[in-house]
Amino acid sequence: MPVTVKGEQTREHILKTSRKILVAQGFHNTSVSEIISATGVKKGNLYYYFASKEELGLAVLEDAKVEFFLFLDKSLSGPDPVAKVINSCQAIFNIQKKNNFVGGCLFGNTALEMTDSNPEFASVIQEVFDLWTKKLEDLLLSAKESGRLNSPIPPRLLAKTVVATVEGALMMSRVSKREKDLRDFMAAVKSLLGG
Amino acid sequence: MPVTVKGEQTREHILKTSRKILVAQGFHNTSVSEIISATGVKKGNLYYYFASKEELGLAVLEDAKVEFFLFLDKSLSGPDPVAKVINSCQAIFNIQKKNNFVGGCLFGNTALEMTDSNPEFASVIQEVFDLWTKKLEDLLLSAKESGRLNSPIPPRLLAKTVVATVEGALMMSRVSKREKDLRDFMAAVKSLLGG
Repeated sequence: MPVTVKGEQTREHILKTSRKILVAQGFHNTSVSEIISATGVKKGNLYYYFASKEELGLAVLEDAKVEFFLFLDKSLSGPDPVAKVINSCQAIFNIQKKNNFVGGCLFGNTALEMTDSNPEFASVIQEVFDLWTKKLEDLLLSAKESGRLNSPIPPRLLAKTVVATVEGALMMSRVSKREKDLRDFMAAVKSLLGG
Repeated sequence: MPVTVKGEQTREHILKTSRKILVAQGFHNTSVSEIISATGVKKGNLYYYFASKEELGLAVLEDAKVEFFLFLDKSLSGPDPVAKVINSCQAIFNIQKKNNFVGGCLFGNTALEMTDSNPEFASVIQEVFDLWTKKLEDLLLSAKESGRLNSPIPPRLLAKTVVATVEGALMMSRVSKREKDLRDFMAAVKSLLGG
């Protein structure tokens, strides 16, 4: 029993530490030695938990996916569906600001680096974008039905646009490192949703 | 004189071939040997034109920037400013479709891979996003002034949103490989611009 708990802790430790490195440097630019050095875990131990760098990368994505949706569900809070969507975008932008515009979105980064060459990575990232979009769409649909959304853009397209805008904004503000850009994008999302 | 022309052609050949590799694989995942093998240029000759892989990568970005704005200016065509903006987005999406959703946007890819670690790369990419946004903003401003744009979003924010949506859309459709996604994003851009 204690072995299992310790094993689970080690696995968690490897996942969280690797995620920090991968979001900052990318997958190809990160070596297994760097991960070993950053985690302090012995090589044999690392390979006990993850058979390859690919398997580790995939597990990092899966772990980040679960965490992202916990975060998203929590951040989708507010007095009405539109406010919930707006607040969730603000919460994402706040993290980017807190991280000093370094790293950005693990899913977006990995999408651009890995999806053409690795269908398994692509599949996890697709799940993230699809479920994220679906959650926003459901909220915007209920807002539309209750007359609280007065956008000419249908909820399904609006949800996709918000997700694309947030991803584009994370990428562009990572380049500019300008807080003003995030404020602009936030204002744009609010306008989009008629807020 | 013929030497200069030949030299210019070799440089061009290296730039265009390297761009294809870099957009598909990324900077860190591409070795100098791969570039040598793909271009058929001898190592010494490659280093004669570009002192380092970084210098080559930067020159590829600069070259792609010039080409992108020639393409953009050409694609910004149509009976009125809003149509021009819409047609330019469609032209960009058409390239993504023609490329079978592989590769995506060199600037976006490189932004996510390089901007935290290489300010020179970041600076070229910033120029691309800023000038692209400015060109759309100018058109949307003139559309607003002539009463042809009935969006509640101010032209400056609208231009930024269109660029972020296009970049987000290129990334997300690169993951999904779904033509329908590009059609959705195109419909969203049209709705955004009241088209």
